[in-house]
Amino acid sequence: MAKSTAVQTARSWIERLWVRIAERGGPYAAQSGGAVSPFDRVRVLAEALVSERGEASGAIVARELQAALTQLSDEDRWRFFEYVATGFTPDQAKLRAAAEAYLAESGPLQAQRLAEVAEPPRQELLRRMNMSPSGTAALVEMRRVLLTKLREQPQLAPLDADLRHLLSSWFNRGFLELRRIDWQTPAAVLEKLIEYEAVHEIQGWDDLRRRLAPDRRCFGFFHPALPDEPLIFVEVALVEGLAGAVQPLLKRDGEGKAAEAAARARAAKANTAIFYSISNCQDGLRGVSFGNFLIKQVVAELKAELPHLTTFSTLSPVPLFRRWLEKRLAEPEPVLTEDERAALGGDPASSDGERLLAVLGGKDAWWDVPETAQALAAPVNRLAAQFLTHAEGPKGVRDPVARFHLGNGARLERINWLGNISSRGMRESFGIMVNYLYDLASIEANHEAFVRDGTVARGTEVEALLAPPRRTPPKRRAG
Amino acid sequence: MAKSTAVQTARSWIERLWVRIAERGGPYAAQSGGAVSPFDRVRVLAEALVSERGEASGAIVARELQAALTQLSDEDRWRFFEYVATGFTPDQAKLRAAAEAYLAESGPLQAQRLAEVAEPPRQELLRRMNMSPSGTAALVEMRRVLLTKLREQPQLAPLDADLRHLLSSWFNRGFLELRRIDWQTPAAVLEKLIEYEAVHEIQGWDDLRRRLAPDRRCFGFFHPALPDEPLIFVEVALVEGLAGAVQPLLKRDGEGKAAEAAARARAAKANTAIFYSISNCQDGLRGVSFGNFLIKQVVAELKAELPHLTTFSTLSPVPLFRRWLEKRLAEPEPVLTEDERAALGGDPASSDGERLLAVLGGKDAWWDVPETAQALAAPVNRLAAQFLTHAEGPKGVRDPVARFHLGNGARLERINWLGNISSRGMRESFGIMVNYLYDLASIEANHEAFVRDGTVARGTEVEALLAPPRRTPPKRRAG
Amino acid sequence: MAKSTAVQTARSWIERLWVRIAERGGPYAAQSGGAVSPFDRVRVLAEALVSERGEASGAIVARELQAALTQLSDEDRWRFFEYVATGFTPDQAKLRAAAEAYLAESGPLQAQRLAEVAEPPRQELLRRMNMSPSGTAALVEMRRVLLTKLREQPQLAPLDADLRHLLSSWFNRGFLELRRIDWQTPAAVLEKLIEYEAVHEIQGWDDLRRRLAPDRRCFGFFHPALPDEPLIFVEVALVEGLAGAVQPLLKRDGEGKAAEAAARARAAKANTAIFYSISNCQDGLRGVSFGNFLIKQVVAELKAELPHLTTFSTLSPVPLFRRWLEKRLAEPEPVLTEDERAALGGDPASSDGERLLAVLGGKDAWWDVPETAQALAAPVNRLAAQFLTHAEGPKGVRDPVARFHLGNGARLERINWLGNISSRGMRESFGIMVNYLYDLASIEANHEAFVRDGTVARGTEVEALLAPPRRTPPKRRAG
Amino acid sequence: MAKSTAVQTARSWIERLWVRIAERGGPYAAQSGGAVSPFDRVRVLAEALVSERGEASGAIVARELQAALTQLSDEDRWRFFEYVATGFTPDQAKLRAAAEAYLAESGPLQAQRLAEVAEPPRQELLRRMNMSPSGTAALVEMRRVLLTKLREQPQLAPLDADLRHLLSSWFNRGFLELRRIDWQTPAAVLEKLIEYEAVHEIQGWDDLRRRLAPDRRCFGFFHPALPDEPLIFVEVALVEGLAGAVQPLLKRDGEGKAAEAAARARAAKANTAIFYSISNCQDGLRGVSFGNFLIKQVVAELKAELPHLTTFSTLSPVPLFRRWLEKRLAEPEPVLTEDERAALGGDPASSDGERLLAVLGGKDAWWDVPETAQALAAPVNRLAAQFLTHAEGPKGVRDPVARFHLGNGARLERINWLGNISSRGMRESFGIMVNYLYDLASIEANHEAFVRDGTVARGTEVEALLAPPRRTPPKRRAG
Repeated sequence: MAKSTAVQTARSWIERLWVRIAERGGPYAAQSGGAVSPFDRVRVLAEALVSERGEASGAIVARELQAALTQLSDEDRWRFFEYVATGFTPDQAKLRAAAEAYLAESGPLQAQRLAEVAEPPRQELLRRMNMSPSGTAALVEMRRVLLTKLREQPQLAPLDADLRHLLSSWFNRGFLELRRIDWQTPAAVLEKLIEYEAVHEIQGWDDLRRRLAPDRRCFGFFHPALPDEPLIFVEVALVEGLAGAVQPLLKRDGEGKAAEAAARARAAKANTAIFYSISNCQDGLRGVSFGNFLIKQVVAELKAELPHLTTFSTLSPVPLFRRWLEKRLAEPEPVLTEDERAALGGDPASSDGERLLAVLGGKDAWWDVPETAQALAAPVNRLAAQFLTHAEGPKGVRDPVARFHLGNGARLERINWLGNISSRGMRESFGIMVNYLYDLASIEANHEAFVRDGTVARGTEVEALLAPPRRTPPKRRAG
Repeated sequence: MAKSTAVQTARSWIERLWVRIAERGGPYAAQSGGAVSPFDRVRVLAEALVSERGEASGAIVARELQAALTQLSDEDRWRFFEYVATGFTPDQAKLRAAAEAYLAESGPLQAQRLAEVAEPPRQELLRRMNMSPSGTAALVEMRRVLLTKLREQPQLAPLDADLRHLLSSWFNRGFLELRRIDWQTPAAVLEKLIEYEAVHEIQGWDDLRRRLAPDRRCFGFFHPALPDEPLIFVEVALVEGLAGAVQPLLKRDGEGKAAEAAARARAAKANTAIFYSISNCQDGLRGVSFGNFLIKQVVAELKAELPHLTTFSTLSPVPLFRRWLEKRLAEPEPVLTEDERAALGGDPASSDGERLLAVLGGKDAWWDVPETAQALAAPVNRLAAQFLTHAEGPKGVRDPVARFHLGNGARLERINWLGNISSRGMRESFGIMVNYLYDLASIEANHEAFVRDGTVARGTEVEALLAPPRRTPPKRRAG
Repeated sequence: MAKSTAVQTARSWIERLWVRIAERGGPYAAQSGGAVSPFDRVRVLAEALVSERGEASGAIVARELQAALTQLSDEDRWRFFEYVATGFTPDQAKLRAAAEAYLAESGPLQAQRLAEVAEPPRQELLRRMNMSPSGTAALVEMRRVLLTKLREQPQLAPLDADLRHLLSSWFNRGFLELRRIDWQTPAAVLEKLIEYEAVHEIQGWDDLRRRLAPDRRCFGFFHPALPDEPLIFVEVALVEGLAGAVQPLLKRDGEGKAAEAAARARAAKANTAIFYSISNCQDGLRGVSFGNFLIKQVVAELKAELPHLTTFSTLSPVPLFRRWLEKRLAEPEPVLTEDERAALGGDPASSDGERLLAVLGGKDAWWDVPETAQALAAPVNRLAAQFLTHAEGPKGVRDPVARFHLGNGARLERINWLGNISSRGMRESFGIMVNYLYDLASIEANHEAFVRDGTVARGTEVEALLAPPRRTPPKRRAG
Repeated sequence: MAKSTAVQTARSWIERLWVRIAERGGPYAAQSGGAVSPFDRVRVLAEALVSERGEASGAIVARELQAALTQLSDEDRWRFFEYVATGFTPDQAKLRAAAEAYLAESGPLQAQRLAEVAEPPRQELLRRMNMSPSGTAALVEMRRVLLTKLREQPQLAPLDADLRHLLSSWFNRGFLELRRIDWQTPAAVLEKLIEYEAVHEIQGWDDLRRRLAPDRRCFGFFHPALPDEPLIFVEVALVEGLAGAVQPLLKRDGEGKAAEAAARARAAKANTAIFYSISNCQDGLRGVSFGNFLIKQVVAELKAELPHLTTFSTLSPVPLFRRWLEKRLAEPEPVLTEDERAALGGDPASSDGERLLAVLGGKDAWWDVPETAQALAAPVNRLAAQFLTHAEGPKGVRDPVARFHLGNGARLERINWLGNISSRGMRESFGIMVNYLYDLASIEANHEAFVRDGTVARGTEVEALLAPPRRTPPKRRAG
């Protein structure tokens, strides 16, 4: 009862609202609404938006609704999400009738009819919300917030499903624009790079500048409705030969014209483009895939600009390697050759795994000790090769970065010992970094094989790591 | 049998195609395919596009498919439409199961599941076709062609439904850009105006130039994926007072600096903006509504640019008036006052309708005869007012232009006798033109009333036309 | 006396003017000035502009002056020109002193001092006039008008000299922007092409469109201060082999997508770029040279865009050929070989010149008569070769188009009989057109030789035309 | 002898150079020239550039010369400057003749002729150097370097005079573009602000961002030939009421959306625009004036964007005040009232000046001691008012910032005690900052009065400071 009165009040409030909107333009949600609660306000506006009225004055109602939503308390926002997720369902009678008709005869026209009535009005609501001036940004943000609690609140799933469906359709590759990002790019976009870089953090503007120097390239996808927001971007270094370590790529040069000229000279001599960082920027677009398009198109752009480039490869992290390795080393089977065991030292009573972990997991910076680093190189590289080529479970290879690039048709070209000695690199993968090579001539075949039976295309160095260990010659001692 | 071999050949052709694509880039459909028939080629490409492979190499396959489609014969094209319209249906088993589950329990999650599996793969096919470089344009064109035969070929309806659904979503107001069109606009866009103008034909570049003179405005909606293609555009004249006739607005001025300065001076004095032509440009977007947004936003733009404008009104045709009037006048009831009858003359034995039609439908240019034109003015205006305010059937007012503007919240402000004396104007409405006035302060209320019960908001002049006819005083003659 | 009162009135008017300008902004010249004559007004404003006050409020005074100038009568405008040309001279005392100092000791510092005081204040006046919003355009226009009477009014020469000096400096190559002009160019620029085309008239927008088709290129120089005004533009046809006739290049294709695709295909196969029209656009910039930069830069642009182009050549008129030929043929010396004489026919008593002229100057379209056209080809081509390679007087080659291209380092590659059969082509050169070939490898040497001693670089065909006539074998008749 | 051989070698080198340039394009100075010394190379190129050849191939020679100049040693560069400054003088015979002719008859035509031949070829050389791709930037840089030693090397003055003359002409107001600079501006421009800010140093990107927040504005003049280089820029704060202290304006806000919204709200309420920093950016353009145009045009821009702004004022330093004050206080005359003396304390035997200096020049941060700061306020403000309104010598007011704004027509509105407590503020002016108010209605009159007789327009507060000190009433103590 109380509720219906509240709604009644809201209704008459919105009636008056129209008059004022018509008279003055501009969003009114803030200063009006009097006795109407913020939540009732958004509810009435959302209903008005999907109604017939919304059709005629959609843009205005959408703008009002968006303004009203920004003013909700956190609690009310979640209430609104739930209200949208559980309401705005298809007309039950029509849907039941269509379902029955389809069950009676499952032809294409019955299927079409069923699809039509099954589409929830919620999608139309979201489409109309998009009509407000920065509606697309608001919907992306709405989904970002929604995703933070989706696990705890499964009843919100239908809202997420509809948002994802619409955003996938709107952020179709055909609508994206690939833009080069450099020092001529507006600061409003550049600061987003600093914010969004997810792989190798950008330490402020001087660091950013180095990453946009003449021997670097940066490209991102943009959508016309979010002109200042990269959706995803990739950072590329132009170098000679396959780069195996990331720290040299991140090192800052001096500034000024001399440094710039030196960078330009390096770019002129480069034969290899190293994709050393790819970052998705919009949490609200999770599950909408851009990365595979991006890499392939950037390869094409770079080829056109710099015809002397012959090799295109990533330098990628292996985020799940350490976790896997620790499990693997807990098993008793030997993993070392005799020579390796000797080089490594440690308690002879220990298993190979225990020995390795004793060093790798130690507190000291063992990677600064040349002998230790050297002794670990071969066995850890070999184990990494096993990890990255071995399918586990139905999804195949376990590491998500590997799965992404291999699924894209790249080749596992090289495993780099101590390729990233930052604390994150150590924490994730004991410093291992990997080159996934994009060779356009074999991309399609690699992709096919990977999808068909999980075959991982490999470079010769990786192949060698996977070869059965040389037979350790029997140790014969003199005398 | 033959078919499956053909498909087999196509499959192996496409295998080889990948290799060549990978090696050279660029679309290959033209020069390759050998023994594969063009239709098989597009079929295999379409299937590849919705397959898992399409996910990875979608952009390339989409480009190939688009290139292949342009090379189909007309016959094969229609075959392809039918193939897509009847195939690419949802998985029958899953859809039946979901339908049954929904019938068992009609909750929101069951509804969501049903919506998910009911969406035909055809939509995903179309979404992926959009990934090719000018994919959106190709899909709009595809629908344009499709619509030309949809009535004859009802089995194509599902394809049309899906295209319309996607295009509505993609051409959401939130993605459209309002652009002013003037003499600074690229010729590639301007020539489209000449091509698309649907109300008052543009007679070449000199006529176009007059319509873009300093006392005119032109605005259009554009979509980022069709940068040179207006979706809809409106032509506006800046005048003093409500313009009632279109010919003066279309008359060409002289050219040169003096004419330009004169036009600028007229714009500076104008208090009224007359929307004298609105044209939808893309047949392939039929049913996707832009007009209501366009007018309202253009009103806002004009107010900002020219604050001295106080009145915003259309000068619109009444395309169905003549058809209605001829029927109406075939009925025997009187429609004239005694004075009108006298002024009109004609056969006293005729009904009012017959008398009127005898003149209106005559071969002579009666509108050039002042007395005749004068005698017809009052009765025809009155009948037009009746036509435009009288609801017929469930859709309400019959004239589509009237329904559009009244539904938008405009007011039927004035009926203009001989507002358009072109042959088209005479053919459609005996020269009647109408002003629909956009008064932002009453737009919402007008819209509400019109939607609720078909009430047509009217200006005082129209009101007067609808008043019950003055009682004709008995004619007493002096004995 | 009357004059000084007038000036006094103007002065106090301008005082009041400042107040109003300060209060309201915007040019006031039109509505104010009361008793002040328009000429006094511009005079006072010009003086104010070069005064110390002009330094502080230059932009405002400049704007006022420009507005006032547009309102002068023609007579007053010429009075103003004379006033500026004869006034605004350097300070006589200072200049005399500097001249004497230089005569006493002609060192660099004395020279510098003399240059400083010799510069007329008129130049500063013109520089300050440039500060008004469209000041540069107004100065270019001023010079255009000035040039129309410069010959009759030699006292205006100093004004012209200063304008030319400044405009040369401002329109320095370093400030010009080369822009491609195509169907994406704003109509406001395109209509200038129609207006300014000086060689082969553009017959409206459809003709223009053909000249911007995919197998054509058009480039122009623009200056940032005149954004919509091409300074000079060149039209280029992409063809196979050296084009010898202009009518085929100007012929219109059909329109639509098929015609466009055909043009695109021609461009893809082309190996030769023919510069068939170069037009200077701004009479007010006469004497400021752009053409040589333009051609060379366009060659570079085309090479970059279309690497398969190997030949860059003009197809040029010979505007002075007919005039020269008629004089030449009035002389009694023979110019024909015996065979030519026979082929030509005509009165045996006439001189060669008379015979030729009888045909060439006839009223009939002799070029449509194959035998006649054929009979004339060899002798006229030969005479044209003589005309174009023969230096006369100190300026060398007489034809201005030839002088321009040869001075640029081009080679006289080929003479084309009936290369332009339009009435203008016949009137100027009996249809002769010439290819000047730009071969970057020899441009410098050609230029050097031409400048040094007038040597004209020639292609082999031209060389052959210049060879001494074959000995006509004695005519021996049988019996 | 040796020299002429060197030149001979250079000449033949340049001959070969042309060939190579023609064949390959691109600057060759670096890799060629063999035995030719770098200095000879630039000399020959410079001569070629002013020669007739330079006319035809100017752009290429200019590019070569510019490339060659960048490779000179410092020593050679100064040699080159001297070579250009003392060579490239007018033709002596012609100039002597023109000087004599002018002395014989000093008419306008003789004056024109004299001006023509007096212009040194050096100017033509510089104009042609401008034709190379970044020629303008190179000439601005050349002058910057030149100015660093001009005092020591007076023989370079003619080169400076010519550079300045050309740059003044090229950087004419009519060619400058006013651009708003904000967070949408490319980083390549923004970093220049950090580099060039001359008044209140910008401490990195976060500080910069604050200065471009929504309650700030920044505008700069740009020239089309230097697209990334501001010539001058001004920073503006939107505030309520006349701001008297700079530190609050420079204080950083928090970041993020809340801070941005707060800034936006402040802008919406602001009635005053404070120009708190104006920086010239290009040393090479010294003496070319932009500031007066800039302020007036920015006032116009701000009025158009934010009609609620009513007051436009600077907050300016007084760089020469301290120097003047210390001299002034060294004089024995009293400068304090009795009350001020009492408030200040100090050694009674000291002069007023000594007392003041003892405090002001002390090592302690006296401004942090409220009583001291308070005691100093009145006398120092009064002395500042005297300094700023008192003409000294022919140039009038001594402080350059005051002279600039007063000459522009601004009014000395208010003197702010402790307006800038940074170390620089203290060092220059004991913390005094000044508001110069730009009131468009009185700007012209102020300017006139200032130029005519040095009258300084003042606000009432300044007027009060200048009033004769109140008669200090005789101190009578109660018996």
